[in-house]
Amino acid sequence: MCRLLAGHPNLRLAGVHANSSAGRRLGELQPHLLPYADLEVQPSDAAALSGYDVVVLALPHGESAAIAAQLSDDTLVVDCGADHRLNDPAAWARWYGGEHAGSWPYGLPELPGQREQLAGARRIAVPGCYPTSVTLALAPALAAGLVEPDVVVVAASGTSGAGKSAKPHLLGSEVMGSVSAYGVGGVHRHTPEMVQNLAQAAGREVTVSFTPTLVPMSRGILATCSAPLTAGTDAAAARAAYEKAYGDEPFVHLLPEGQWPTTAQVLGANTVALQLAVDPDAGRLVVVAAVDNLTKGTGGAAIQCANLALGLPETTGLPVVGVAP
Amino acid sequence: MCRLLAGHPNLRLAGVHANSSAGRRLGELQPHLLPYADLEVQPSDAAALSGYDVVVLALPHGESAAIAAQLSDDTLVVDCGADHRLNDPAAWARWYGGEHAGSWPYGLPELPGQREQLAGARRIAVPGCYPTSVTLALAPALAAGLVEPDVVVVAASGTSGAGKSAKPHLLGSEVMGSVSAYGVGGVHRHTPEMVQNLAQAAGREVTVSFTPTLVPMSRGILATCSAPLTAGTDAAAARAAYEKAYGDEPFVHLLPEGQWPTTAQVLGANTVALQLAVDPDAGRLVVVAAVDNLTKGTGGAAIQCANLALGLPETTGLPVVGVAP
Amino acid sequence: MCRLLAGHPNLRLAGVHANSSAGRRLGELQPHLLPYADLEVQPSDAAALSGYDVVVLALPHGESAAIAAQLSDDTLVVDCGADHRLNDPAAWARWYGGEHAGSWPYGLPELPGQREQLAGARRIAVPGCYPTSVTLALAPALAAGLVEPDVVVVAASGTSGAGKSAKPHLLGSEVMGSVSAYGVGGVHRHTPEMVQNLAQAAGREVTVSFTPTLVPMSRGILATCSAPLTAGTDAAAARAAYEKAYGDEPFVHLLPEGQWPTTAQVLGANTVALQLAVDPDAGRLVVVAAVDNLTKGTGGAAIQCANLALGLPETTGLPVVGVAP
Amino acid sequence: MCRLLAGHPNLRLAGVHANSSAGRRLGELQPHLLPYADLEVQPSDAAALSGYDVVVLALPHGESAAIAAQLSDDTLVVDCGADHRLNDPAAWARWYGGEHAGSWPYGLPELPGQREQLAGARRIAVPGCYPTSVTLALAPALAAGLVEPDVVVVAASGTSGAGKSAKPHLLGSEVMGSVSAYGVGGVHRHTPEMVQNLAQAAGREVTVSFTPTLVPMSRGILATCSAPLTAGTDAAAARAAYEKAYGDEPFVHLLPEGQWPTTAQVLGANTVALQLAVDPDAGRLVVVAAVDNLTKGTGGAAIQCANLALGLPETTGLPVVGVAP
Repeated sequence: MCRLLAGHPNLRLAGVHANSSAGRRLGELQPHLLPYADLEVQPSDAAALSGYDVVVLALPHGESAAIAAQLSDDTLVVDCGADHRLNDPAAWARWYGGEHAGSWPYGLPELPGQREQLAGARRIAVPGCYPTSVTLALAPALAAGLVEPDVVVVAASGTSGAGKSAKPHLLGSEVMGSVSAYGVGGVHRHTPEMVQNLAQAAGREVTVSFTPTLVPMSRGILATCSAPLTAGTDAAAARAAYEKAYGDEPFVHLLPEGQWPTTAQVLGANTVALQLAVDPDAGRLVVVAAVDNLTKGTGGAAIQCANLALGLPETTGLPVVGVAP
Repeated sequence: MCRLLAGHPNLRLAGVHANSSAGRRLGELQPHLLPYADLEVQPSDAAALSGYDVVVLALPHGESAAIAAQLSDDTLVVDCGADHRLNDPAAWARWYGGEHAGSWPYGLPELPGQREQLAGARRIAVPGCYPTSVTLALAPALAAGLVEPDVVVVAASGTSGAGKSAKPHLLGSEVMGSVSAYGVGGVHRHTPEMVQNLAQAAGREVTVSFTPTLVPMSRGILATCSAPLTAGTDAAAARAAYEKAYGDEPFVHLLPEGQWPTTAQVLGANTVALQLAVDPDAGRLVVVAAVDNLTKGTGGAAIQCANLALGLPETTGLPVVGVAP
Repeated sequence: MCRLLAGHPNLRLAGVHANSSAGRRLGELQPHLLPYADLEVQPSDAAALSGYDVVVLALPHGESAAIAAQLSDDTLVVDCGADHRLNDPAAWARWYGGEHAGSWPYGLPELPGQREQLAGARRIAVPGCYPTSVTLALAPALAAGLVEPDVVVVAASGTSGAGKSAKPHLLGSEVMGSVSAYGVGGVHRHTPEMVQNLAQAAGREVTVSFTPTLVPMSRGILATCSAPLTAGTDAAAARAAYEKAYGDEPFVHLLPEGQWPTTAQVLGANTVALQLAVDPDAGRLVVVAAVDNLTKGTGGAAIQCANLALGLPETTGLPVVGVAP
Repeated sequence: MCRLLAGHPNLRLAGVHANSSAGRRLGELQPHLLPYADLEVQPSDAAALSGYDVVVLALPHGESAAIAAQLSDDTLVVDCGADHRLNDPAAWARWYGGEHAGSWPYGLPELPGQREQLAGARRIAVPGCYPTSVTLALAPALAAGLVEPDVVVVAASGTSGAGKSAKPHLLGSEVMGSVSAYGVGGVHRHTPEMVQNLAQAAGREVTVSFTPTLVPMSRGILATCSAPLTAGTDAAAARAAYEKAYGDEPFVHLLPEGQWPTTAQVLGANTVALQLAVDPDAGRLVVVAAVDNLTKGTGGAAIQCANLALGLPETTGLPVVGVAP
């Protein structure tokens, strides 16, 4: 997000706040952020955060709600954490524990009616990176009744999704040349968020079998999503539904037939690349989506939402073309 | 396979045959095969291939059947290609076209009864790399009636599965830092082989939704396989079925609970690493399998089968420990 | 370059020309260039190229000179190829063969006096990617007499420097997990360009021992450059020379002491990251430079030069922050 | 080393000892070591280590000397750490600090006379991974007087050389897609070991400018080494010197002319691949060497030395063919 702000004509990175790194220069922590090298990291309590027009939070769950409660209602608060994504207090209690802080407008403008909710909003919950890809991949088919609400997702993610905390299994020596699964069996915390979004699209209950895998790259998610076809669904109907849903979207691209998404094509961009196929033998619709987990999956989405909330053109400062090859 | 033969106490690489490369030294084509650097590649017609005790074929479909027909019945012929894997001529005609050459004993000794068929055999069809991982991942659950025969597989593969032909989308610049899907929608030719194996295990018809993805590593397959739970299946029952199926197998390892397979742990080894989970919310069993597509997925399997056919101890010359990290 | 043009406020990608791909849509060839997906590739003869304000050439050596000769003197022609980089016809004849087409203003604005030559120019030769990194790494030290003109360079390059032609040794399977050297022993064609630039800086003859290596990443060059210290050179003097040379440069950054360049920090950016050290035991100055070979190493440099030639602010449309991590 | 021992016919991994991991099963720490999964890690004090025929130490500097002093003189102690590599107490004091524990027979059998010193030895110091590659790359040229003793080395290393301690800059997200330099300016502790070895070969003082770089792969070192040619040295003389030095060596391979080493070709193998070129313009000999830092660079070398010390054939249990592609 800092990288993107460096090229944004209307938003300016005015301060960076963190607890354990307070007092250090940003250049020590993120050497590639050359224009901000001398910015000193400040504490992250609510008092220190007051006075900004926009505050973007990226905190462990439970922490952003506490801080946001102390910020002015006039401040635009964009939360990249989980605190305000789920609508259902019971789901929150089950997956995160404790009391739910309440939901905020959900930062996925490509969902029907969502763009209107975000215009002028002052509290926005940015979706998780996996839910962004999976929701955009399957919502049109579920909304159009093209598939049964019984979804299987296997998603490949680059390692940056795990953040900067140094754990042995995330060392380069361990991840390069290797693919692994984790959070198997329906235990990943992004699962209820997918269920919520897809159930909304389907207008009925949905099950999601979600398996995330770790692949040897820094950035990117490729989500392979499928669901059983309903009677009469064919490839043309499926394609038509997606063209209708995303034909005018600046960041969601249904690729031409025959092209399949690659994560490289969205690297550093706020783009979602989609393609679909109907498998008549297995009786399933398969939709593949590629996103950059740190751009459309987090930081880019935050800026897209902020643009909407502030009345700026939605695409301001957001690249569409990935850094490929 | 040449690498493994260099350390095999009973088998000796006596000759290498190929058409387009005939006359060149192996050292030019595969510089890492230092002990064989001066071996001159010979033509690959059947006449040139006579006189060996064992002939291993790795040819485009349709070609190995033609050659094998001209080799002595006493010669052990191990086919790494597709010609003799499928039992059903109709499946062959649909997926490969033309007339089927007939099936050979299927080189997956870990399937019930298969080891006996391979002992002393003189014609063996080595499984495809994807079917090896998927079959071993799901056969025990299907055989035990723990899941419905309605399978979804998403497999991540290293790029070496595509061979050495130079295509632009397989260039390092394109694949590094990128994941993509291909052959989506049930069109990959390994699909009927999976269907065949899993139907045999289930004793009934099976559907397989199979999506292969290409990930940025040279070797390895991680197959994420799932199927709907039948009534009453829980994690303990599932685990028990796999322990029973593979408890004595030298190359198939159900990992301790809490550990998930990585492709690095089987790199260069003839090992399959497995783990499973039951997802009660989605109502599915998820099994993850890791293999090295060029070892247990092809060349190692060929040696394992040759060992069995020749009456050698099955594990001769085959590493179990991968080159990790 | 197309990616960067998509975000450039003053330059518009008006057409793409190529011989073998003429008639195809750009989206087939470069799927990530979503905004240009429907642009049809046109032939690349000089007639087809007339009518543009700016023409950027990226052709095998010998071809751009022939085309440029037929374009109007009022057209800004930016050549990313080698034809017009060398000043010395004898060097051209030795390294490329045939007659030299003559040199053009050299597109490295960070060299003393060079920015002035580029302002308003209508013919510009963009430097090679290796020479950009090596020249910027060592010119200040040579110009200040801090080192002897006896240079050793070992540079690690991502594979995109080799282009999109599909050669077996550039396949992902071959390059991932592997480092190799090529063009060893002074035979790489970028060598005379480095010699020319560094001799100009030194004001005397220079020898350059240059070894390029191929590393498993798509983009980026890390050049490790060293030369013997002259009497009296210490770290402070070296640092001062580089601060003086680059203190005001928007794209060349001498990192704070203790930080060493990474290619990730310049990925997709027009930035050069530099750091230096003095080794008193070996008696050498070591300077390490990181560039993105496709941005500051080619396409970004072309835009930077075009900005200068057209009287636009030099930094227009050029990112400084790399896509890291 | 554990991987290699699993296939060694004469050596058996009888126990594993460590301090912080004592009490845990090896399978938790190194899941790929399937045959040893249930081996419990024991404490690493000298008392616990008595009773073995062979003890291999891999400890921070200073610690192995203390333990070895308490082990029986009849025990073969192979030290993979630095304590006993340097001959000169002053060099030890400068680079490691404190008092030197004395040198042991140096475990590089390919050096002249060294094989004899290792036969029957009971204390062996395994070389560092960088010194192995650099020494083998340049010793023949220095010994034959083909180059001046003024050496420049830039080495690319995979990240496994840094071990398993989790540091942020070694995370996969940081190292993938990125090359960086570290320990620049003659400060890497392997430098005095190279100086010692090369001075011995040259029979006179040697300077070494050594720059290590980190490249995005797990294993492997590619060392690019050069030195000024002495009068009269040409390519034929250089090649002859290396053929003479290594013609009979089982693990050091001068590649055929035109082939350059890749780290993939030695992955998991105890092999060193070498190639050389003479650059008449720059007046330098360039030698490139590839090793697997964890095999010939450490664990394989330890076994090779143990084989020699125990009177086994030197090549027992050591693969020559790398796991490529």
